[in-house]
Amino acid sequence: MEDLHALFSPRSIALVGIPRSFKMGTLFLMALKDQGFSGPIYPVNPHATEIEGIRSYPRLADLPDPLDMVIVMVPKGQVMTVLADCARKRVKSVILYTSGYGERGDREGVEEQKRIGEMARRGGFRLLGPNCMGIHSSNSGLAFFPQMPRVPGNVGLVSQSGSLCNLLMRAFEPRKIFFRHAVSYGNACDVDLPELLAWMGKQPDVPILCAYTEGVRDGRSLAKALETIAGRKPLVMWKVGRTAAGQRAAAAHTGSSSGGEALWNALFRQHGVLDVSNLEELIDLVMALHHLPSGGQGRIVLVSGPGGPVVSAADAAERCGLRMASLEDRTAKRLRSILPATGTSWRNPVDVGLSASFELNLYVDTLQVLTEDPNVDAIMVIGGGVTDEMNRTYTEGLVRIHQGTKKAFLAVAYPGFAQIEDWLDPLCGAGIPVYPTPERALGAYGRMMEFVDFCEQRSGKSRV
Amino acid sequence: MEDLHALFSPRSIALVGIPRSFKMGTLFLMALKDQGFSGPIYPVNPHATEIEGIRSYPRLADLPDPLDMVIVMVPKGQVMTVLADCARKRVKSVILYTSGYGERGDREGVEEQKRIGEMARRGGFRLLGPNCMGIHSSNSGLAFFPQMPRVPGNVGLVSQSGSLCNLLMRAFEPRKIFFRHAVSYGNACDVDLPELLAWMGKQPDVPILCAYTEGVRDGRSLAKALETIAGRKPLVMWKVGRTAAGQRAAAAHTGSSSGGEALWNALFRQHGVLDVSNLEELIDLVMALHHLPSGGQGRIVLVSGPGGPVVSAADAAERCGLRMASLEDRTAKRLRSILPATGTSWRNPVDVGLSASFELNLYVDTLQVLTEDPNVDAIMVIGGGVTDEMNRTYTEGLVRIHQGTKKAFLAVAYPGFAQIEDWLDPLCGAGIPVYPTPERALGAYGRMMEFVDFCEQRSGKSRV
Repeated sequence: MEDLHALFSPRSIALVGIPRSFKMGTLFLMALKDQGFSGPIYPVNPHATEIEGIRSYPRLADLPDPLDMVIVMVPKGQVMTVLADCARKRVKSVILYTSGYGERGDREGVEEQKRIGEMARRGGFRLLGPNCMGIHSSNSGLAFFPQMPRVPGNVGLVSQSGSLCNLLMRAFEPRKIFFRHAVSYGNACDVDLPELLAWMGKQPDVPILCAYTEGVRDGRSLAKALETIAGRKPLVMWKVGRTAAGQRAAAAHTGSSSGGEALWNALFRQHGVLDVSNLEELIDLVMALHHLPSGGQGRIVLVSGPGGPVVSAADAAERCGLRMASLEDRTAKRLRSILPATGTSWRNPVDVGLSASFELNLYVDTLQVLTEDPNVDAIMVIGGGVTDEMNRTYTEGLVRIHQGTKKAFLAVAYPGFAQIEDWLDPLCGAGIPVYPTPERALGAYGRMMEFVDFCEQRSGKSRV
Repeated sequence: MEDLHALFSPRSIALVGIPRSFKMGTLFLMALKDQGFSGPIYPVNPHATEIEGIRSYPRLADLPDPLDMVIVMVPKGQVMTVLADCARKRVKSVILYTSGYGERGDREGVEEQKRIGEMARRGGFRLLGPNCMGIHSSNSGLAFFPQMPRVPGNVGLVSQSGSLCNLLMRAFEPRKIFFRHAVSYGNACDVDLPELLAWMGKQPDVPILCAYTEGVRDGRSLAKALETIAGRKPLVMWKVGRTAAGQRAAAAHTGSSSGGEALWNALFRQHGVLDVSNLEELIDLVMALHHLPSGGQGRIVLVSGPGGPVVSAADAAERCGLRMASLEDRTAKRLRSILPATGTSWRNPVDVGLSASFELNLYVDTLQVLTEDPNVDAIMVIGGGVTDEMNRTYTEGLVRIHQGTKKAFLAVAYPGFAQIEDWLDPLCGAGIPVYPTPERALGAYGRMMEFVDFCEQRSGKSRV
């Protein structure tokens, strides 16, 4: 544990091999400045005295002691020399960006990678990589991409792919979801997925975990790590390389050996891991976990203006293992008095009719009545107005009703009503996740309730 | 056939029950004006002399003869009287917007609906509805929603839901896909899905068919209609009401009885129907059918800058039944000479490396080489630049290479690179469909190749 603390919270950082002029490697320095890393930063380049306005040193040995972390981006031929310097300098952690090892697919690359792992153990430092982007941590100001949000979040990400960290940070930001820590761990010749997950599992400021992996060396360690998390925190895991074609691609990307599909599935089932198989599913599910209250029994009511989508939504609710809420008679009566007599339905799914696109109160009043029904835990609403101003009335109405209740609200921004991007700010900002279709909203909520069930079963309680 | 011609190409239209002031019903008139319907339009309202600048008549009987079509939106209590007027006036077709029939769920509603069907048969006119929006047809200028595109397209839509017609028209427009005809047919007490599909199947200007249905009265007629289409035109069908919850919702929406899941599945398999289960899948697939060439054997090469997404993409390709193209040795050698030595891969999936986000030529040159490989039928590319200008260079490069080849190009706009909306115009406009994830791109292309296979098997040829 102490070792990983050094990886996530270094007090000083050297960047060895940082280019003199603006190139890919410069981004590491820009990222640290951008996130406000408060300790000393030492660019190391034999041919520079200053890089990006910061005093630069020719060699690692020239830096003042003590030095906590070294980010290494030298060409491959110089890596072993720099790592030896790190050992001499007694640094605590190394992030190795340089690639061309296990992912090359030949024996030489694998052997060289092994030697790096051994060097780390002998040298007394922990090493992340090779072929990785490193760590973004809002606690310490560590970062590997500039222009990332500076908001400390509640999600921890462990990803073998660096670009995925980048993509997810950008996708989460408008949804008001932020990372506390995000790790790109690459070929994992020393620090690997199990240790990172176990560490994240122990951080009290990280209640939601995500992982992307192409394979793991030590399945037993992974099982142990999952056991420490199971039933305590949701872990959304995207395991790729699950087909023959995917396994070949994983080998070429991080030199990973992906392992048997059945084994992974058993591991996930046993530990209540929420496995996903694409980026949209991952984002959808984290959005639900972050924004929705986990109380209640998942009894959902579907509300819609356009009649068509709601039939398929009812199909989806049943397929996702959710229960359609049985509305109280009193609720049906109240809805009947609110809604137009034709082209509507006051049973679940509740159809407020097409005219609601012009009279937004029909939506708002319906939601108010439904929040007061004790048989309802969650409300999914498909709708909106026909102008931007009407859409503002609609989203403000949703937020107002939602503030007065502890029930889960899910909004669907269907094409023809709204661009999803326009609703993320007002709705996600108020704790209402927005989805492009009812199927995706219900899929995410269904998976979330699956996790709630898993936790209750594990703790001996049962939902039904 | 003649009967449906009257529905799709009326020469004159009366709008009976159109409101005097702006309300939902006004949209029908606005829509006809908007689409440039060229024949006479007669608003009918006992209390008006002019509506939206058009001379209005108190009663249907007052209109000049002959009258082809009547759109009926009177309150339910007046419907039978108006239909009797239609018969007397010898109109050829009626669109009945009024709702409150089979979808009410009681015996009275079902009986009333039956009587409407009988009235149509006795009165010698064909009737669409009740509880429907009607027909949008770019050939005749028929329309039911204003502000819809006026471009005549190549897609025919038969939808039980009116709002779905609206949603799809809006979603397709930025993707450069347009309807030739779109039908909202509601409760289907006279004209039903089979007849509409068979009619669309015979139109030479409609090479792609879509349908959304909640159920059908006469399964045998549907099988016959599908048989006339099978292997000739792709039919993308979204059948909802496939679970108990969905069937209850369908009954409340259009009074449909959804029928057995197994029966529908058998029907689809037998006739090569491309069944989908949500809006995104439908849009994705029509985009592939519309933009992609159907030649070749579906041998795909995946190209990516960010390394992570491509592993999952390889998984998806295999799961979608696509074949990863085996690149020629010459291709691998040429790629090796173009791409940086580390952090890249010149096998399929081709990883052009992260630096390609700064040097867009790496993408463009790679695509050029791949289009020249005879083992490649299709190329899916995940990438882009880091600025708007670089993204323009990227999309322009894609379009340029694509223009010189007959191979299928699929672009993925991954978060962090581009908003998908920004790429629809330049890429879809050039025949390159854009998807938000590799999984969705490959899913759509896989389904399209499934249809190509079905056609070849049916005509006695085989792809392999």
